[in-house]
Amino acid sequence: MPDLFQIVACDPASRARAGVVRTAHGSVETPIFMPVGTRGTVKALSPEEVRAHRGQIILGNTYHLYLLPGHELIARRGGLHRFMHWDGPILTDSGGFQVFSLVYGAIADEIKGRRPQHGDLKPNMVKVTDDGVLFRSYIDGSEHLFTPERSIAIQHQLGADIILCFDELPPFRAGYEYTARSMHERTHLWEQRCLTYHQQRYSPHTGPQPPRQALFGIVHGGVFPDLRRESAELLGSMPFDGLCIGGSLGATKAQMYEVVDMTVPYMPDNRARHLLGVGDVDDLIEGTARGIDMFDCVSPTRLGRHGTALVRDRERNWKLNVTNAALREDDAPLDAWCDCYTCQHYSRAYIHYLFRAKELFGIRLVSLHNVAFLLKLTSEMRASIIAGSFTDFYAAWLGRAWG
Amino acid sequence: MPDLFQIVACDPASRARAGVVRTAHGSVETPIFMPVGTRGTVKALSPEEVRAHRGQIILGNTYHLYLLPGHELIARRGGLHRFMHWDGPILTDSGGFQVFSLVYGAIADEIKGRRPQHGDLKPNMVKVTDDGVLFRSYIDGSEHLFTPERSIAIQHQLGADIILCFDELPPFRAGYEYTARSMHERTHLWEQRCLTYHQQRYSPHTGPQPPRQALFGIVHGGVFPDLRRESAELLGSMPFDGLCIGGSLGATKAQMYEVVDMTVPYMPDNRARHLLGVGDVDDLIEGTARGIDMFDCVSPTRLGRHGTALVRDRERNWKLNVTNAALREDDAPLDAWCDCYTCQHYSRAYIHYLFRAKELFGIRLVSLHNVAFLLKLTSEMRASIIAGSFTDFYAAWLGRAWG
Repeated sequence: MPDLFQIVACDPASRARAGVVRTAHGSVETPIFMPVGTRGTVKALSPEEVRAHRGQIILGNTYHLYLLPGHELIARRGGLHRFMHWDGPILTDSGGFQVFSLVYGAIADEIKGRRPQHGDLKPNMVKVTDDGVLFRSYIDGSEHLFTPERSIAIQHQLGADIILCFDELPPFRAGYEYTARSMHERTHLWEQRCLTYHQQRYSPHTGPQPPRQALFGIVHGGVFPDLRRESAELLGSMPFDGLCIGGSLGATKAQMYEVVDMTVPYMPDNRARHLLGVGDVDDLIEGTARGIDMFDCVSPTRLGRHGTALVRDRERNWKLNVTNAALREDDAPLDAWCDCYTCQHYSRAYIHYLFRAKELFGIRLVSLHNVAFLLKLTSEMRASIIAGSFTDFYAAWLGRAWG
Repeated sequence: MPDLFQIVACDPASRARAGVVRTAHGSVETPIFMPVGTRGTVKALSPEEVRAHRGQIILGNTYHLYLLPGHELIARRGGLHRFMHWDGPILTDSGGFQVFSLVYGAIADEIKGRRPQHGDLKPNMVKVTDDGVLFRSYIDGSEHLFTPERSIAIQHQLGADIILCFDELPPFRAGYEYTARSMHERTHLWEQRCLTYHQQRYSPHTGPQPPRQALFGIVHGGVFPDLRRESAELLGSMPFDGLCIGGSLGATKAQMYEVVDMTVPYMPDNRARHLLGVGDVDDLIEGTARGIDMFDCVSPTRLGRHGTALVRDRERNWKLNVTNAALREDDAPLDAWCDCYTCQHYSRAYIHYLFRAKELFGIRLVSLHNVAFLLKLTSEMRASIIAGSFTDFYAAWLGRAWG
């Protein structure tokens, strides 16, 4: 298998590395944050804006796109890239996370501090078997079946550059037995089925060009070191083009970092590592220090819609509430370090006003800023790894030495 | 008074003319449509987008900006241009239209097919005297007084390039007596007071540079020819920098065109003429043919938010409902004639989907298209006047010969 992932530089003190992921729609320089375009749009932003603010790759959600407008419609319109006018790399997830959130949503949301996405869902909307997951559409109540093969087939039709294996997501509070059984009897078997199905369409990758679609496996095992190691070693031995860290990442940031620490050493160095669904400022830095290459999260646009701007201020947990009355006459940009369009041209006072007046442009400006903020962060983090100054970068942002 | 308005070309068959309005923030080529930035933002669009789509001048609403965030705050932030990051010309209205809509809103909305903007307003929120209008804020119920002098003072602080006189808006169904009395005993006196107050700040305009702020008068007289003529002649004899046609424009488009026809001949040729609040496709063309230079309307962004796109299709009344199921797989752009960003990159199918999924980006794309559509229309209309082919333009769009 040719190297779709190339390491450009490694930090000598940590596991941080700068690399390049090659895809059919261009290369991605890592570490990278990928903005999430859940439904075929990075909410409120144009593709040009994302690109102009260092955006290299975006993530689309198979579950949502499957239900509306449907993967077949998107395929008929020329695939997701053409449909949404994004000609750079796209990664789609498998739909698993959303489908299992229908069952375990309340718990996952509680842990992650999120509100449920679908008001009144009931566990009986979903039925899980060894074959896959039967679920009802939140749009019209119709019944749908996701199996590993079906998820890959849908992702083939959407046409993303990187697609993910269909996995089972145990509830967060699942203990060792449940997590181990889920991993052994479901997720690992399902990932093998995804790989087999994928290889029927794309023969093993050879030659200098990246594959039309790359398939990433997902390492599971919850918070349990032996399970994480087993999963990482097994999936690392299979011909996946890259690997994600998925499943339960623990209840706290500290536990998440432990999970990464217990997993990364058993993942192959020569493949990209994607930590699924993580995008807080400190998590991007801590994750990179621990050997993660790719991150994604809806948080920058979600925070933007709710009037929270990311700022380079550790004391404030990197967040500024733009509806705070203290900003009423504040002539400063959202963040002095940021170089985004919003921070170049608009004051906190104006943005505060837009949110008070419930003007859509406020959502747009803060969403753009938040996405740009994380992209500048990962870009500068990469540069520091190449320059050999990553631990300085780490200390400057987090206020403590690495290690 | 030096010519702030210069005529570049006149159509020999109609009253259409191409001109240039000079302002402190640059020149405006007429005829022009001006997008409305009610609250210091052209809803959902960036200034750069408006500019890139032939936008030359935008309109801000004094009433809204006065209530939130307040004209004094905007002045402290450097004025409206700087606050909202638009360095081109701005026109502000006087606040009169919105204040009187608090009283007569239901009628005006009924006539113009609009929904009331403020749900449960009551006539007792407003009290009109010869001095001005006492009204309550829809935000917090606080009491405010707009007089002619106060309106101009607020507009001075907002800092727009073109400001408007404060006038009384009689209810649409007002008869001759009411309309005449309103015009004689209120509006004309108020406009003189506006002019006097304005001249205390800005001495009569001389020299080659346009004034820091230009003041336009507003011709009234409802649907009554003798009143319109009297108002046009009186205001035309006063040193206003330009003139608007305001007040009641009738119940139908035909009546509106009659009002323009009975007014324009008595307005001075050497000053710009602005038909207030008008922006339908046919109205822009019919108005231009009748000697109007400037138009404004919230319709392109309002229609955009509700999923209606402007299209070059007279049979459909220039409108396309993007939520129509027929667009589900339509690969065409919103409009084949349009050259806007939306039409260059996105299919009707994608936009239809965005509205179904309630994605903000759909509102943005259709709002941008609608604004761009009207700006391309006025731009091509101007070119046709200069080229001597305006009547061909008129016939091509409206399907009938002029006159």
